[in-house]
Amino acid sequence: MSPRAHRLLSALLATAVIAAPVAAQTTYDSADPFIGTGGEGHTFPGAVAPFGMVQVSPDTDTGCEIRDCYGHAAGYRHGDPTIQGFSQTHFSGAGHSDLGDFLLMPVAGDAVPLEPGDPAKPRSGYRSRFSHDQEVARPGYYAVSLIDHGVRAELTAGPRVGVHRYAFPAGKAAHVVLDLRSSLYNYPGKILWSSVRLRADGTITGSRETRGWAPARKLFFAIRPNVPLQGHAFLDREENIPYRGFQGPGRGREDVVQLQGRALVARLDFGKLASPLEVKVAISSVDEDAAIANLESEAGDFDAIRARTRAAWEQALGAVEIDAPAPMKRMVATALYHALLAPSIFSDADGRYRGPDDQVHRAEGFTFHSTFSLWDTFRAEHPLLLLVQPESRNLDFVKSLLASQQASPFGLLPVWQFHGRETWTMIGYHAVPVIADAYLKGLRGFDADAALDAMVRSASYGPYGGLDDYMKLGFVPIDREPEAASKTVEYAYDDWTIARMAGAMGRAGIARRFERRAGNWRNSFDAQSGFLRARKVDGSFRTPFDPTAINYGSDYTEGNAWQYSWFVPQDQAAMFALLGGDAAAAAKLDRMFEFDNSKLDYSHAEDIAGLIGQYIHGNEPSHHVAYLYAYAGQPWRTQERLKQIVESQYKPTPDGLSGNDDLGQMSAWLVFTALGFYPVAPGSNEYVIGRPFVDRATLALPNGKRLLIVADGLSDANRYVGRVALNGKPLDRAYLRHDEIMAGGELRFTMQPGPERTWGTAPAARPYSMSTARPER
Amino acid sequence: MSPRAHRLLSALLATAVIAAPVAAQTTYDSADPFIGTGGEGHTFPGAVAPFGMVQVSPDTDTGCEIRDCYGHAAGYRHGDPTIQGFSQTHFSGAGHSDLGDFLLMPVAGDAVPLEPGDPAKPRSGYRSRFSHDQEVARPGYYAVSLIDHGVRAELTAGPRVGVHRYAFPAGKAAHVVLDLRSSLYNYPGKILWSSVRLRADGTITGSRETRGWAPARKLFFAIRPNVPLQGHAFLDREENIPYRGFQGPGRGREDVVQLQGRALVARLDFGKLASPLEVKVAISSVDEDAAIANLESEAGDFDAIRARTRAAWEQALGAVEIDAPAPMKRMVATALYHALLAPSIFSDADGRYRGPDDQVHRAEGFTFHSTFSLWDTFRAEHPLLLLVQPESRNLDFVKSLLASQQASPFGLLPVWQFHGRETWTMIGYHAVPVIADAYLKGLRGFDADAALDAMVRSASYGPYGGLDDYMKLGFVPIDREPEAASKTVEYAYDDWTIARMAGAMGRAGIARRFERRAGNWRNSFDAQSGFLRARKVDGSFRTPFDPTAINYGSDYTEGNAWQYSWFVPQDQAAMFALLGGDAAAAAKLDRMFEFDNSKLDYSHAEDIAGLIGQYIHGNEPSHHVAYLYAYAGQPWRTQERLKQIVESQYKPTPDGLSGNDDLGQMSAWLVFTALGFYPVAPGSNEYVIGRPFVDRATLALPNGKRLLIVADGLSDANRYVGRVALNGKPLDRAYLRHDEIMAGGELRFTMQPGPERTWGTAPAARPYSMSTARPER
Repeated sequence: MSPRAHRLLSALLATAVIAAPVAAQTTYDSADPFIGTGGEGHTFPGAVAPFGMVQVSPDTDTGCEIRDCYGHAAGYRHGDPTIQGFSQTHFSGAGHSDLGDFLLMPVAGDAVPLEPGDPAKPRSGYRSRFSHDQEVARPGYYAVSLIDHGVRAELTAGPRVGVHRYAFPAGKAAHVVLDLRSSLYNYPGKILWSSVRLRADGTITGSRETRGWAPARKLFFAIRPNVPLQGHAFLDREENIPYRGFQGPGRGREDVVQLQGRALVARLDFGKLASPLEVKVAISSVDEDAAIANLESEAGDFDAIRARTRAAWEQALGAVEIDAPAPMKRMVATALYHALLAPSIFSDADGRYRGPDDQVHRAEGFTFHSTFSLWDTFRAEHPLLLLVQPESRNLDFVKSLLASQQASPFGLLPVWQFHGRETWTMIGYHAVPVIADAYLKGLRGFDADAALDAMVRSASYGPYGGLDDYMKLGFVPIDREPEAASKTVEYAYDDWTIARMAGAMGRAGIARRFERRAGNWRNSFDAQSGFLRARKVDGSFRTPFDPTAINYGSDYTEGNAWQYSWFVPQDQAAMFALLGGDAAAAAKLDRMFEFDNSKLDYSHAEDIAGLIGQYIHGNEPSHHVAYLYAYAGQPWRTQERLKQIVESQYKPTPDGLSGNDDLGQMSAWLVFTALGFYPVAPGSNEYVIGRPFVDRATLALPNGKRLLIVADGLSDANRYVGRVALNGKPLDRAYLRHDEIMAGGELRFTMQPGPERTWGTAPAARPYSMSTARPER
Repeated sequence: MSPRAHRLLSALLATAVIAAPVAAQTTYDSADPFIGTGGEGHTFPGAVAPFGMVQVSPDTDTGCEIRDCYGHAAGYRHGDPTIQGFSQTHFSGAGHSDLGDFLLMPVAGDAVPLEPGDPAKPRSGYRSRFSHDQEVARPGYYAVSLIDHGVRAELTAGPRVGVHRYAFPAGKAAHVVLDLRSSLYNYPGKILWSSVRLRADGTITGSRETRGWAPARKLFFAIRPNVPLQGHAFLDREENIPYRGFQGPGRGREDVVQLQGRALVARLDFGKLASPLEVKVAISSVDEDAAIANLESEAGDFDAIRARTRAAWEQALGAVEIDAPAPMKRMVATALYHALLAPSIFSDADGRYRGPDDQVHRAEGFTFHSTFSLWDTFRAEHPLLLLVQPESRNLDFVKSLLASQQASPFGLLPVWQFHGRETWTMIGYHAVPVIADAYLKGLRGFDADAALDAMVRSASYGPYGGLDDYMKLGFVPIDREPEAASKTVEYAYDDWTIARMAGAMGRAGIARRFERRAGNWRNSFDAQSGFLRARKVDGSFRTPFDPTAINYGSDYTEGNAWQYSWFVPQDQAAMFALLGGDAAAAAKLDRMFEFDNSKLDYSHAEDIAGLIGQYIHGNEPSHHVAYLYAYAGQPWRTQERLKQIVESQYKPTPDGLSGNDDLGQMSAWLVFTALGFYPVAPGSNEYVIGRPFVDRATLALPNGKRLLIVADGLSDANRYVGRVALNGKPLDRAYLRHDEIMAGGELRFTMQPGPERTWGTAPAARPYSMSTARPER
């Protein structure tokens, strides 16, 4: 079969499987990378391998000066009319952003524009119009027709390589533009330096250093086309250079073989081609040779790599196979797909990577992963990965966190890290619950004592986020540290996970110390108003107090008192007691969901989306809240809220995510919720039972066992859990234990049309709370 | 002995030896690092080990926006009233400049300024007044009193470490300012990025990336004080940052342990100290850990390292021991000292270094050296180092050049390289004669075939300096390439050295090809005017033609037709024939030296200094010219001109160099000339005999042999060579052969008051010329 015929067939097949009967569809078949590319999901439709180092994807626009920067956090917006090019690196669902490195764009014909041009003015630059009709996005594969150039562009990716395949129109010269000026969240001055060179063997290598979300991030690239270069131009578009220096060979000539500067653009010429051009691209944080080694670490052409990555996706997504109506199946399959993108591989094929100290390290015996969006992902994303990914992958995460701590100039575990660099985004030290949860769930193979020491260090470093005051006062004082209320409760939760892990390890001193700290949430809880509030150094609550106010740098982090007052996952019972007991707590939950916010305007707050009253599903602080009714002995209310949330916040369409996917957290919430349980308090080894949204699901666990989940009688009418059976035995608790899941077997829900007020309601049936914890836990 | 007493004694001794009787003085004793620090010598007085990686030296001013940039190419100007600080890297005698990395300044007391301040306003910043009375400069040691701070500062250096010793006034708090904004030739925007961090063990590490002479040069540092830090401040003085990013631990606090940015300054606090503070500093092009490893590669404190480096200097300078009147001895000893500073060690203790491709490489089995000022140093500096340095050092140079070619994005040997980076300064491919000369003089231990291939590649790369036209037309056309006349003759000479080496290796094809190219100088020689002139593509000479004009980008490189028309070292006889024969040539040489330039103004041309008529000793194109009388059979005229030059162009004082020392070339000229011979045509294995300026000299050769040079009867009156004897046998030639020098023994000049018109004048006694070469050569 000719490459072109093969490609057309592939495209047809890709479309065909989506339309095939539901029963025949695997999770791979159902995953739709377009979900979240509209609205504020901030996902990208391009090609990536599971946890892949490169994320090759179209950028419809870039640059904060030009357009809506927040909306282009992943480069692509489904509603945009043009594609600017295909860059090699993208975040999946980040709120803030960066990346978009090494943008390539195929251009056909003799006139090759070197500026992107205006989307409103077709052919004003190298960007091109495109149509969704001619667009395909599958896990590991993307294709689109670039209308203005007559080029069919396809993308695929392996773990450390991206491959572009461009079919140029017959009889027209083939060119590829490499624009080193292009970047996501591209403020003026972001490009500190860049370089490009043509090597004797035809490989194009180079580097870029950017001052973006991560300051002074260095990244190298290697680009290798499958046909010889016929010509090229390397140009520096910077003007008013204060000192240009002496100029080397080829000065004034476009075909200079090496160029450095801050505004470089390259044109690569291939002449008229009889078959599609394939361009392999790899990156490295170490150097150009390492980028070449990464490129060469994955043999084969476009089709070979596409096939391998398809197999990898089929295996990874096969961890959760489901039966459900097509829309739900597509939503859950895509959610699992989005949950398997990050943390991303970052070490080179030889194990080297650039760490948080900007120095090169070598990962010995593990693969260094980066892109840790921990404030988001400690909640459900990492717990999900412990269930659906091999131990080795989860061990890579833990070892990467610990290696990062070792290399941190501050001795701290990552907060929000990508490409090995710390961004200090969001709050807390949520690498701590990730490691503790993994340890408590049985992950071994790392130095647990060193890990615990690193966790204690991260929880005790005075200059970080008001920790010095927190350790002295028991709370973060708002007159010394912004977002003090949120910090206090998140620290207290993180502290509890340290106590849990230390206790399990027999390090009793640390366990006692951090168990005490785990109660610090009380110091910021105003029993009078029933809200978490920020206190000042003198102990008084800051006034004026408006529980609906959302302002950056205020008492709360991307939220207000309504969302944050529920954040005591380690001791929900004690918090409910402060609120006046279960009934009062449930009533307050109702007030939250039913709050009339018609008079409120949160349009100034980028991350605030997906509102149900004061419940904000588009951002993480709310994610566990619907499950809290179960702690109040009203699991049917949890079930009701979950239906409300799933139906209003997720859709099987490009605008199907109500908020940023946040590197898988929004999606992990859906995967768990669809299966019928959710990790409200990672570190407790419990999952609170909600209600399933799929008819059947098979969980292929990393220990080789399988858990079959069945929702008998599930329908829109049968929306309540009547009873639950684990391996045929009735389960009367509102929670599952981790060991129960890992043992495999069958979890059977029997659904019914009305609330079941006898199941899971007894005090002993309620999920873990620190103050009421049964001794065996 | 207390450190302070020891230090005072050292200072006294240092002063004392200068004043001691001449007879007792070794070359080490006589070397005076202040020579060249005034005028336009551009040398520095600070501490450096032979070929040392760090050059720790005071900067009296930095920054092109602020002051005379050219005059501060080495940071220090002897006439300046204040010292801004002590930076770790300096060029010795460069015209253009860079470096001045990692400036440290001790400050005593409670108020610590963090801006350098105005030299005209004492105490307006951290800079301090100083007095030459309290200043000591010896090879490997420098000391000065900082009047405004009451601090005695001493500097020493090992091969890969600098050590600062600061004695603070009793009872005052000791501080050190580290200013990462400071740099030499510091145009706005030069600092692309920098970082500083305090490690847990008290070591301060960091990095800087600059856009200076070498674009995007990366350098890392490690600073380790001998007492614990009591406190510190890391500050970013950049304003109007377009995107500041999220801020990490310690934001808003000065004692943050890590900071990145473009305008960093650090204050290191040591409290009140009972003994002087010692601060070790090392650099690396690889990373911070490598800088630490370099720092730790040299054990011992200030005194131990100072003693080791003194011993190293005594040995290195001991290669030439001389008897001469004190002023001459001081000039020649200092010249040898300046000749032993570069090329500098650049690979780390573990062999790694960052090469011309900005990537990290490892020198296997050799030490990578950089700072190759080849347009200058191919003439006499490298030939001198072949006589006074071990084979291993010269092999390091050759291997470093070859490794650089391997890593060059262009596949070219270095042109003007420092810190592993190519600057493309000046013209020619003069790594070629350096390698050829070394090979022809018997240096082995490198892959000569690969070297020859690299040389041919450098001589054949079309886009470099008009080489494509040169290869087609036989000359560089001025309508396509600036400085075409100079390029044509320098290429032709370089080509001849390729032919010589290829011939010696038996690679006859290359030898023939490049022997033909060696005659290309004829294509730009205008027999009519008797001058080298620039031709256009159509073959015509460019008009108007003014042999006295000096303009950058003109037909000539830093010079005019007068200086450049003599550059045919490979075939002086043929060139003299074109001029009309020996008499006409000698008469033209006379016209050059006696030219009335009272009406000419060359003040616009930075590198033009040291004029004797149209002879310009302050720049390299003239350096061989005085020796050319010997090719015309008039060696006594050479002797006269040498006396004229030595007496007018060199002084044993800070303003004792008439032009930039150019990494040792000006000095190497003096060393050779003082000994009585000079390598007019490296590659010929001959040295043209001039006349000695010292009574006796002993050359300790790298093969272990010794050549004793005696100038019988030398005096101001006895200024002519009467006869020469080699090992007792009369030597009637006007040249020495390299093998004769290397065999050791005694070279005896008998001096006389009048010209000796019979010695060295016969046609067979004249030095090598290609067209008249005797077959045995």
